[in-house]
Amino acid sequence: MQQSPVPPETPIYRRIADGLREAILSGEFRDGDRLPGENALMAQHGIARATARQALSVLINEGLAVPKRGSGVYVRQFRPLRRHGSRRLSQERWGRGQAIWDSDTRGRPYTVDEMQIDREEAEEEIARVLDSAQVWVRRRRYSVDGRPVQLAVSYFPAALVEGTAVVREDTGPGGVYARLGDLGHAPAHFTEELRARMPHPHETVLLDLPAGTPVLVIMRTAYTANGVPVEVNEMILDSASYVLQYDFDA
Amino acid sequence: MQQSPVPPETPIYRRIADGLREAILSGEFRDGDRLPGENALMAQHGIARATARQALSVLINEGLAVPKRGSGVYVRQFRPLRRHGSRRLSQERWGRGQAIWDSDTRGRPYTVDEMQIDREEAEEEIARVLDSAQVWVRRRRYSVDGRPVQLAVSYFPAALVEGTAVVREDTGPGGVYARLGDLGHAPAHFTEELRARMPHPHETVLLDLPAGTPVLVIMRTAYTANGVPVEVNEMILDSASYVLQYDFDA
Repeated sequence: MQQSPVPPETPIYRRIADGLREAILSGEFRDGDRLPGENALMAQHGIARATARQALSVLINEGLAVPKRGSGVYVRQFRPLRRHGSRRLSQERWGRGQAIWDSDTRGRPYTVDEMQIDREEAEEEIARVLDSAQVWVRRRRYSVDGRPVQLAVSYFPAALVEGTAVVREDTGPGGVYARLGDLGHAPAHFTEELRARMPHPHETVLLDLPAGTPVLVIMRTAYTANGVPVEVNEMILDSASYVLQYDFDA
Repeated sequence: MQQSPVPPETPIYRRIADGLREAILSGEFRDGDRLPGENALMAQHGIARATARQALSVLINEGLAVPKRGSGVYVRQFRPLRRHGSRRLSQERWGRGQAIWDSDTRGRPYTVDEMQIDREEAEEEIARVLDSAQVWVRRRRYSVDGRPVQLAVSYFPAALVEGTAVVREDTGPGGVYARLGDLGHAPAHFTEELRARMPHPHETVLLDLPAGTPVLVIMRTAYTANGVPVEVNEMILDSASYVLQYDFDA
C-alpha cells in the first residue's frame, strides 16, 4: 500500500518481476496458481531464458512464489493460522482442560512430534529470567494440516517441576499451565517479545521452509500472580503460516 | 536454542559459515566486529576464494552480517528499539500531549520524513474495515539515530476528519489520537495484526535494508469506546531494528 516508484533504468527482469508481483498482490493470480513459466515469459517479452529465470527468482526470494520441481513456479499457498496473543492463553481455557493449540487451529488437525524432555544447565539468559541455574526443557515441533509450522522450547525452573507431570510426555488435560496451577504456580501474566529474522539452517530443515521465508521468534515469559517467573517458551514460527493478533485498550 | 545436527556431507562453505554463525550467536564476535575476510578464511581453511566468499554470503543472507564496500564483512549492528504494544498507546500518554514515538525511542533522536497527506478512494480491505469508500491517508517514514526504521500509512474515514488537524502536516501535541479525541472519537481499543515477510523492492529502498532482512508488517485498527473504527495504520518495520513486546494476563 506504499507507493512504488520505478526508476526508468530498472532492468528488464525487475520490470517483469514487478508486473508479476502486482498481479499476485492484486489477487489476479491466487494462492496456488501457476505463474507463467520461463518459455511463456521468453515469448511474451522477447527475452533470454536466463532473464526469465531471474524474474521468477525475484518472486521466489521474496517468498511470494515457490518452485515445484519439474512443474513450474506457483503462487505461495498462504492459509495462515491466526494466533490470538491474549485470548488463547486465558486461564478459562486451560483451566477447563483445553489445549492452547485448539484455539490456534480451530479444528484443523495438528500434530506434535520431535518431542524431547531433558534436565539441563540453563543458558545465561534463561537462567537470569527464571532465576534458576538448572532447568527442565521441553522441545517439540507443531504441524498443522501435515505441514510443520512451529518449533517450541519451554524452560522451567528445575526445582519447581521436578518429578511432576510437567516433565512427562503427556501432561494431561490443559497441558503444562494446568499442571503448574495444580502445583500452586498458575501463570497469571505473560510477556511476549517478538522478532523476525531469516531462519538458521536447522530451522529451515525442521520447518521445511522454502527460500525467502523469514521466521517469527517469540520469547514468552509466564509469571504467577505474585510475579514469579515459571516458564520461558521460545517459539520459532514459519512466518508464512501465521498472522499474530494482539488486542489491547488505550 | 534448538539442536543443530550437521549431517556429515555438509559442504565446506556451509561448515565454515556454521562456525562463524556459532561465534556470532555465542557473542564471541560482537555487534559491529569485523569477521575474518576472504584471505583469512582461505589461509585458515585451505580453500579457494569462491568458497570463502560463499561462506560469508551465507551469513549475509541470514542477516547476521553486512558487507561494507572495500572494507570487509561485519557483524550486523543490532541495537533494537523496544516497541511496547500495549503501553505505548495508553490514553494517559497522548492525552498528556506526548508523542507515541517518544515511548519507543526513549530519548534517541528520531525524525519523520517522506510525509504525504492525500484524500483517496480506499482499497477494498481498508474500505471494508473503516466502512468508508473515501479516506484521508497519511504516509510517512520514521528514522532513529539517522537510520530509517519504519514506514507507516494511516487511513481515516474521510467524512470523520475532513478539514481537521488530522489531515494537516502538524497535528499538534499528542498527534492524531489526541485530535480524534477532540472530535469526540478517541481511540479506546486497538487490534494489531502482525506478519513477517521479505521486503518488496520499494521497501528495501526506503528502509535501506541490507540483503536477508525481513520486514515486520503490523496492521493496526483503532476503535472508539463504541466500537467505531477510526483509523487503520499499516506499518512496515525493519525487523533488525525492532523487538516488539506485548504484555497480557491469563
